[in-house]
Amino acid sequence: MNPRGVTRMVGTLLLLVGVSMFLSVLISFLYHESATLPLLYSAGLILGFGGLLLLLSRGKIELGVRDGFAVVSFGWLAMSAAGAIPFMMTGYIPNFTDAFFESASGFTTTGASILTNIEALPHGVLFWRSFTHWIGGMGIIVFSIAILPFLGIGGMQMFKAESPGPTADKLTPRIQNTAEILWGVYLLFTVSEIILLRLGGMDWFDSACHSFGTLATGGFSTKNASIGYYDSAYIQWVIIVFMFLAGVSFNLHYHALRGHVRNYLKSAEFKFFGSVILMAVVAFTLTRFIDGDPFEKSLRDSAFAAVSITTTTGYATADFELWHPVVRVALVMLMFMGGMAGSTGGGMKAVRIQLLVKQARIELHKLVHPETIYPIRLGKRVVQEGIIGNVLAFALLYAMLVAVGTLFMSLLNIDHVTAFTSVVACLSNIGPGLGNVGPADNYSSIPQIGKWVLSFLMIVGRLEIYTVMVLFTRTFWSK
Amino acid sequence: MNPRGVTRMVGTLLLLVGVSMFLSVLISFLYHESATLPLLYSAGLILGFGGLLLLLSRGKIELGVRDGFAVVSFGWLAMSAAGAIPFMMTGYIPNFTDAFFESASGFTTTGASILTNIEALPHGVLFWRSFTHWIGGMGIIVFSIAILPFLGIGGMQMFKAESPGPTADKLTPRIQNTAEILWGVYLLFTVSEIILLRLGGMDWFDSACHSFGTLATGGFSTKNASIGYYDSAYIQWVIIVFMFLAGVSFNLHYHALRGHVRNYLKSAEFKFFGSVILMAVVAFTLTRFIDGDPFEKSLRDSAFAAVSITTTTGYATADFELWHPVVRVALVMLMFMGGMAGSTGGGMKAVRIQLLVKQARIELHKLVHPETIYPIRLGKRVVQEGIIGNVLAFALLYAMLVAVGTLFMSLLNIDHVTAFTSVVACLSNIGPGLGNVGPADNYSSIPQIGKWVLSFLMIVGRLEIYTVMVLFTRTFWSK
Repeated sequence: MNPRGVTRMVGTLLLLVGVSMFLSVLISFLYHESATLPLLYSAGLILGFGGLLLLLSRGKIELGVRDGFAVVSFGWLAMSAAGAIPFMMTGYIPNFTDAFFESASGFTTTGASILTNIEALPHGVLFWRSFTHWIGGMGIIVFSIAILPFLGIGGMQMFKAESPGPTADKLTPRIQNTAEILWGVYLLFTVSEIILLRLGGMDWFDSACHSFGTLATGGFSTKNASIGYYDSAYIQWVIIVFMFLAGVSFNLHYHALRGHVRNYLKSAEFKFFGSVILMAVVAFTLTRFIDGDPFEKSLRDSAFAAVSITTTTGYATADFELWHPVVRVALVMLMFMGGMAGSTGGGMKAVRIQLLVKQARIELHKLVHPETIYPIRLGKRVVQEGIIGNVLAFALLYAMLVAVGTLFMSLLNIDHVTAFTSVVACLSNIGPGLGNVGPADNYSSIPQIGKWVLSFLMIVGRLEIYTVMVLFTRTFWSK
Repeated sequence: MNPRGVTRMVGTLLLLVGVSMFLSVLISFLYHESATLPLLYSAGLILGFGGLLLLLSRGKIELGVRDGFAVVSFGWLAMSAAGAIPFMMTGYIPNFTDAFFESASGFTTTGASILTNIEALPHGVLFWRSFTHWIGGMGIIVFSIAILPFLGIGGMQMFKAESPGPTADKLTPRIQNTAEILWGVYLLFTVSEIILLRLGGMDWFDSACHSFGTLATGGFSTKNASIGYYDSAYIQWVIIVFMFLAGVSFNLHYHALRGHVRNYLKSAEFKFFGSVILMAVVAFTLTRFIDGDPFEKSLRDSAFAAVSITTTTGYATADFELWHPVVRVALVMLMFMGGMAGSTGGGMKAVRIQLLVKQARIELHKLVHPETIYPIRLGKRVVQEGIIGNVLAFALLYAMLVAVGTLFMSLLNIDHVTAFTSVVACLSNIGPGLGNVGPADNYSSIPQIGKWVLSFLMIVGRLEIYTVMVLFTRTFWSK
């Protein structure tokens, strides 16, 4: 590893975080809130620290593949730590563990909160909280579409197989260009949602914060009751649509905006992702309707819950803890899947689940015809052998992290359902789980050490497991 | 498929079941119980039906690989149905669903019971109940060591890699010979345990029944309190040792009895299996000791629970539902693993978990050195690529069955912990789970349709998933 190079990159990231904090300072100033100065000091502190790191790493640097893992892992860690500073400086989350958890939850677009009364926070701090989602979402788009292939991790190879046509393979050759194009799409969607929410009667501030949380598939709300606060079918449907869009590959959106709308339906992953959500919505609606809710409300609540959880956003309108147990189990299963590769959604990603299902079917066929070779296809392309192995190992690591995480949370005397779902909800970057961390609860009751473990899982999950886990191997550190 | 050939084999199996029932008739007669005649009629009925199947399938038959899957699947199904007859005819389990569940639980060596008062049953019926375990255990030894390789399923290939030396690869060339040798080991262990238990003060009848349940890793007891009924450290330690032996490959035992005791320590799977159990025992003992139990009792209860669950036996001395949550979560994780390949234990098998862990590690190394080829080794042998794929797909199918099963049980309004652990406990052929199916409870509260699903999962799990699942593919039935 190249410590100077990594330091330089992490320092740069901190400068970006510090600069982006001035928007919160401005908001706080406009609302004449006492948090303005603490927010300004926080920004200054982060900029100072970022600058120091740059000073320490002067000179020519050259980054290799190994450094990439370290930059991304330490980068997200450093951003989470920096993001915690304003929460502490303003005094709204004085405890460092809690502030780090909230900040990591923001930058990883998880949306799990330790706050019991969100509405007590001033506008400047609330804005910062939601803005960490938006920055995290931007970071994840670059990470999954531009950085992952550089690190040689599955995501992008699958993604390549998904986008047909010669120009599509690598939107543009250079990372910077790719990032700019995708951020354009991200920004366009964010602005569109802000305007649509404003038209529905939500004020500009809440519209912006909720749009940040939607497009990043984050889930932080400015209201204690989350989206359930807004008793407007229009607002809820707008958010359902944008949550869904945020769970779809931004590469597909880019092509659609350039006129190739049919690309959505050409994508095998999109069809799989859409079908899974559709089935969930139909099934959930049925149970809600049988339970006595009117049809539109049954459909809306079901669509909201299914889309919010599957895309790993985590906004809530209804407390699905009170729904039929089968819906709750189905929601936990959807938590494992998550969004599409190249979206801002977390989880294992739809395409990986799709490949796993195909692989299992092929092994059954092989039993009957042992001599035949069955290639795995995704759309019209054949998936390479190496990718299958990588995806299978990814699923294994995921399962192992869930198992070890649940074991650890249980060590803290946490009940089984809370322990298991808090781990899944954090690793998949969703936010709410079941039990004491359900959609009507929050993570305040989790013991300190448990919050650290969950924060770690959020970062590991957000960076596609491999990126962080490889830092724990001896091979990585050997010369 | 060759329906006549399959019918012939299933008929033969039924004849064996019918004949073996005469032992229960004899026991019942010796105890002067009123169940004697109903048991005799049951045996007659099964023999009659088996004979009829043989008559219907007269003529020359030839069995192919595909027929093997059908023979084993339908065979276990038919044995379970036949085994239910005496429960119904004697009137002790009048309901067919319950009787089938109990019988399937016996033949699959699961040990999950719907009986609320076991001690109310007469000796003849209790003997039959325990004897289904013993027959099932014999069947599984032949199945896993002699039939699976014929069907081309992972188990045996791994097993081959495990047993070094030229003669060991296929104990003897012919299935019949292999079976006889392994049954000899099985019988020897059973007789040894009966004698050792008798020496501890258990009567001959209970010694026999409990030894059947131990060697088959079954778990049916003749007492409501299971092994907890016997307040004897000696008896409990004897059972711990034999449960452990039953969870070890019978191939290794065979070699050990021929003087090659060191083969145990040469086996990578044995070392892995032993280490996992050892770690669990140490951890559990610590929690029990901290909770205030004396050291020997802490160690004994912990060893009993860890060995009973890991080997998928399911006997109980203490109600681990009352233990620390971390122990309960660890026990559920052990449920997934199960015994060694070639043992009578269920679950995914130790060697598969071992390979999965190795595969995950290798994928991490590949990230740092993408060009290097890392072969997976088991002991001194390199595991073939195809086997890894097969094992990974096996784990996937396992996870999918657990997910779909839990979803289905939840549809019946069963709480999450009971739904999840009942599915795992039946699929892994253990018996007790957590919640309403814990070690101090039974399966009587599960709705009828749920019992059918669990019975199905017991058979699927017992036959290494693939054997049954392949029957649900179109490829299997196409010509």
